[in-house]
Parts: sequence; structure tokens; C-alpha cells
Amino acid sequence: MKRLDREQVVDLARGCAFLGSGGGGDPHTAVMEIDAALIEGGVIELIDVESLADDAFVAPCGWIGAPTISAEKLPSGREALQGLRRLEEISGRRVDAVLPVEIGGSNGLAALLLALRAGLPVVDCDGMGRAFPESQMVIFNIRGQHAAPAILTDDKGNCIVIETRDNLTEERVARAASVALGGTCHLVEYAGTGKQMKANALRGTISDALAIGQSIRLAREAGRDPFDALFGALRVSRQFGEAGVLFDGKIVDLLRETRNGFSVGRVIIDAFGGGQRLEVQFKNENLVARRDGAVCALVPDIISILDRETAEIIVTEHLKYGQRVKVIGASAPAPLCSTLALAVLGPEAFGLPGPYRSIAELNGWARTSG
Amino acid sequence: MKRLDREQVVDLARGCAFLGSGGGGDPHTAVMEIDAALIEGGVIELIDVESLADDAFVAPCGWIGAPTISAEKLPSGREALQGLRRLEEISGRRVDAVLPVEIGGSNGLAALLLALRAGLPVVDCDGMGRAFPESQMVIFNIRGQHAAPAILTDDKGNCIVIETRDNLTEERVARAASVALGGTCHLVEYAGTGKQMKANALRGTISDALAIGQSIRLAREAGRDPFDALFGALRVSRQFGEAGVLFDGKIVDLLRETRNGFSVGRVIIDAFGGGQRLEVQFKNENLVARRDGAVCALVPDIISILDRETAEIIVTEHLKYGQRVKVIGASAPAPLCSTLALAVLGPEAFGLPGPYRSIAELNGWARTSG
Repeated sequence: MKRLDREQVVDLARGCAFLGSGGGGDPHTAVMEIDAALIEGGVIELIDVESLADDAFVAPCGWIGAPTISAEKLPSGREALQGLRRLEEISGRRVDAVLPVEIGGSNGLAALLLALRAGLPVVDCDGMGRAFPESQMVIFNIRGQHAAPAILTDDKGNCIVIETRDNLTEERVARAASVALGGTCHLVEYAGTGKQMKANALRGTISDALAIGQSIRLAREAGRDPFDALFGALRVSRQFGEAGVLFDGKIVDLLRETRNGFSVGRVIIDAFGGGQRLEVQFKNENLVARRDGAVCALVPDIISILDRETAEIIVTEHLKYGQRVKVIGASAPAPLCSTLALAVLGPEAFGLPGPYRSIAELNGWARTSG
Repeated sequence: MKRLDREQVVDLARGCAFLGSGGGGDPHTAVMEIDAALIEGGVIELIDVESLADDAFVAPCGWIGAPTISAEKLPSGREALQGLRRLEEISGRRVDAVLPVEIGGSNGLAALLLALRAGLPVVDCDGMGRAFPESQMVIFNIRGQHAAPAILTDDKGNCIVIETRDNLTEERVARAASVALGGTCHLVEYAGTGKQMKANALRGTISDALAIGQSIRLAREAGRDPFDALFGALRVSRQFGEAGVLFDGKIVDLLRETRNGFSVGRVIIDAFGGGQRLEVQFKNENLVARRDGAVCALVPDIISILDRETAEIIVTEHLKYGQRVKVIGASAPAPLCSTLALAVLGPEAFGLPGPYRSIAELNGWARTSG
């Protein structure tokens, strides 16, 4: 068990933003909320999955909706705890610990805030190892857990208990209901036992995100290259590995719209000397990067766009014309690259041409060089 | 208390179809389901609202979705009972009686089928006195009851518990979720006490619908004019009154599409001699009739399209080019015509030009003549 302080929360937020692959929402508001709770004396206890009792009751949580909407529609702050309490009533038992359903973006922090409010520990793991736009794109689904009962809550105190028989239907209903409720809601889903979490969750991803965010800050403070530090942190992380610069240039074109509750579009980046061009296509998250038309990174590998000087992460909803950026690619956690997983969250699941090829293969990165 | 036999169920279905104002769904499938249950020895007990204990727990029920979809997507037969049982679990008490949330169309029969399956009586009343496309367009909402907790169930066994703080949000979430679940779902909503139902429900509407359907059958059997019989039955009914022929002609144009979970469009009817033309605009239900451009009937008054020979009712999803029809107008129950009610379910609530003018006024029918 370790406790997270305020500086660590900011580092974690940076790491979560990177792993979000453009999505999961800007962690800024969540950081402020957590900061306020820590100042009031709250404590964030991070525990290892192994420390869970087999019969513990554990609740993954996060937000559903387009990040473009959540950037403008602030939470009331009561959504998550209301959802947790309703889950307890519906299930007839108390929750022992919470965890982020996705580590990417602001959703990596949502579980911390809920933990603070509920006085519960956070388990050092998540269900996605990054962010994905749809809620069935999660290791818990791939490994056979039930999303239901899922509890959707909003800032007005509305609560929807989703008791669907399959996990794709849960996503469809949660998405439709969240759009009807204004486009962004809190969702508690895939609640399970400690035994299930030990078997299914992606372990250590909160620690990984924290180390990633920390590496960038420490490099900046020491005047070292933050990108080198980032690649180093990924190389020694538990779930990630090879990473590198996919492109360096300036945003010259941006198409972004909110459609069916998602932020969809693409961004085009031109090299400074002219000539080369990178196009990144996104649905909340960056899904595919094409360098002069040739695919150089594919979901589930991580594609994140960073300020080329500071390595600060630019999430999808903050992309702007003229930003000078480096596009970073990083390999996804291995469990996301199995045939079973790729059917749920690989390129074809997004209607993109497949099959999936790893970012290391596409860019000729040697697996051992890192 | 009275018991309904098979012939009465068919008569009731005809009356419900008339009161549906084109909507509420074709009762045909519901009649077959009820018939099967009656043959197996089931009993339908119709009780008066006054016979309810003040603290009885009463559940209005019906189907939500576009009738065009429900005509093709048959129910499993388990939706309603699943919803009722979940309501009982959520509320922590047993339901004592059920009632139709809307008397119009197949929804007038849905409560009978649920009553048969649950072994409960049906209360002789409803919440709409006709059919309306949206679930907040109901006397229970107008008179301050809460829709929540509302239980949405589908043919696959999926269940959504909707705990919204206001009734318009309940409609929006139920609509969005029902679309996500395939376009048609069962909905238990506005559950309340016997005392609330005595204060709020539209009384006697099942008996009214039964008498309406019976009058048409008896006239046919006796070789009398079924339209005269229909108008006579409406005149002596508890909730209805003035009625008459708005138009007599042939369907020459029909536009009908499924949009956002509703059947929307319009039908144009030409007089046989040529010259006059009637246009009826619908959103599941017929909302406004214009004779040569001049409004001659407006929601909430009832506008139903009937076969001009047999007076068989033609619901929205069965309208076809070339049908020879009489368009019948009938005054809505008085409680739907209050200022408060019209704000929820009058012309302006549908984006139509108002204010509401009664069908008697628009057509110069003397209130006393009937």
C-alpha cells in the first residue's frame, strides 16, 4: 500500500493523459477536485491487486461520453458516490475497493476521487491500459466478466441501473442514456470479486502512469529531454514497452465533431521542412496514424500528441491549428494484442482496415532496443 | 368487479384502436396473446378505481417505441412480468393491481396480458384517455406523480431501471434506451398508491373502450351503420363526447418514416368527387387534420382513420395508398384540455401552431347535440 500526495497526483494525471491516446478526457478538472479533497485531509491509498481478498467486492468506475462535452459540462461531484451507493444497494453488499475502468485521460483519476469520497482504497490496475471510446473495449469484457449491473449517474442526481445480458448491449444503452442525459455521465460497471480482478485486470497501470508522468517532470526540472525520459519510463514499465517519435511537425488541419456521443475527426500535421505529412484519425481516442498515406500506428497501440518542446500532452479536445507537436507511438499492453482482444478493440472493431500490425513492426523498431 | 371474456377482449381491442388516434400499436398480437392465456384458463378481473385501498400499490404499464417497429419485432411475452417483478424488488413491496398507462391501441391491452400473467386485477382507468407518442404526455405527470422508478424491459431479458428526478428526463432516457434495445420495449412507470390513482387516473376508460368496440360490432351484426353506433357509444361514454366524420375519401399520398424511435409523417386523403382534400400529420398518433388547409382537428382531440364500409380502425402503421376511409374526430377527455394539460400534450407541445381549439368548435358541432 502506498499513499499518493498532491505532486504525485499531478504526475499521474500527466501519465494518464499520455496513455489516453488523445482520449479519456482532460484530467485538469479531476486534478483540481482531488487537490481540494487532499487539502481537506483526504488520503489516497493505492493497493496492489494481490492484496485483495478473493471475495472482496471491487468496483471499476469512470466517465462515459465525448471529452469535448465533459470539457464544458462540469460534474456536480456527487455522481460517482451516488453510483457506488446504488451499486451497493442493488448488489446487497459493500464495495471494498475501486479502480479505474480505463487508466487513460481523466478516467485514470476518477477512481481516485471516488476513493477519497468513499474512504476506500484504489487498486493499482485498470481495464484498458489506455483509453478506448466504447465501454465493451475492456479487458474485463474480453475475459468474460459481466458489465451489469452498471450504474449510470449524472450531475442532476439522475440514476440509471443497466441490467443487460451482454456487454455490447450495456455499452449501447449506457451510450444512448448518457446522450439523453446531456452527453457525459459517470458509470460504475464490471463490478467483480477480488479473485476476478486478480485474474483479469491489467496490473500496475496506475504505477506505470505515475512513473510516466514523473519522468517527464523530472526531465524538465533537470533540463533533460522529456521525450527520452518518457521512452525510458515506458521501457521499464510493467505493461508498456517500445515507444518512439512517429512524427514532428505543425498541425495544419483539424476536423472534429461530436457525433452520437463521440468526438470524431482527424488531424493533419505537416513536417517543418515541408514534404512529409501525418494524418491521425480519432474517435475520442487516436485510432490510426498514416505517414504520407502509409499506416505507422494502429489501435490498440498508443498514439499521443505532445507539445514538441515541453512534452505536455494535448488531448483530442484541445487540438488546435498551428500547434507544434511530436506524435508519439507506444506499444499497447500485451493482453490487448491477443486475437480475442483485437476482435473487440483492434482496427477492425472500428471499421478500419486490418489486420493489426504492431507499432514496432510498422516502424522497424527492434523489440530489444526499446 | 367484472370478468372479461374472449369476445369482450376483441371488442376492447377495437375500442382501444379507435381511441389510439392512429397510435398505440395494432392490438392484433396482444389479442392473440390474451386469447391464448384465456383458453389456458386465465381470468381477467376488471375492478373500479374506487375499490382500490388507499395504500394499494398500483403499476401502470405499456409499450414504448414506434408502432412500425412493434409490428415486425414481436415480444417474447416475458417483458411485462419481468418489469413488474423488478419494480417490486426495487420498491420493496408487491404490486396489487395494474392498469394501462395509455388506453389507445395495443397498449390498452398490455395491462390485461400482464394481469393474466401476474394473477392481478386490472383497474378500469388509464393515464392518457387515448394514445400519445411521449410518455410524459400522461395525466399522472400533469397531476404531479413521479414516473420513476420506471422499469424498461426487452425481449432478450435486458432490464433498465430508470431513476430520474423529473418525468421529461424519464421519457428521454426510456426513449433512447428503447431505441438502443431495438426500438420497442415494455415500460412500467408512474407506479403509485391507490389514493394517487383515485385522485389522478382517467376513470372508466377500459369500459369506455369496450363499449366503443362493442357498438361497432353490434351495428355490423344488425346491419346498422357502425359509424352512427360509434358516435352513440362515445356520446354516452364516461370520458368522451362529441364525435363526427371529418372527411370521407381515398388515401392518395402517404409519407411515413421511423425517426428517433417514432413513426412520423402525413397522409393525404382526397374526396371521391374530387375537390376537397384532408391532410393528417402524425407522430405515432394523428396530431392535426387540415381540410383544404384549414385545421379541423387538433391534438389532444382524437383523430382516427377507419375503413369507410366496416368502420374497422386503420392504425398509422397500416395506412396504405388507395384505402377508402372515413376520418373520425372525437373530443378528448376534459382533463386533457385544461391549460396545464395542454402545455404538456397540446398542439404547442408538438411544435404545432396553437392555441388548441376544440373539435366541436372547429367543426361547429353543438356541445349539446352530440
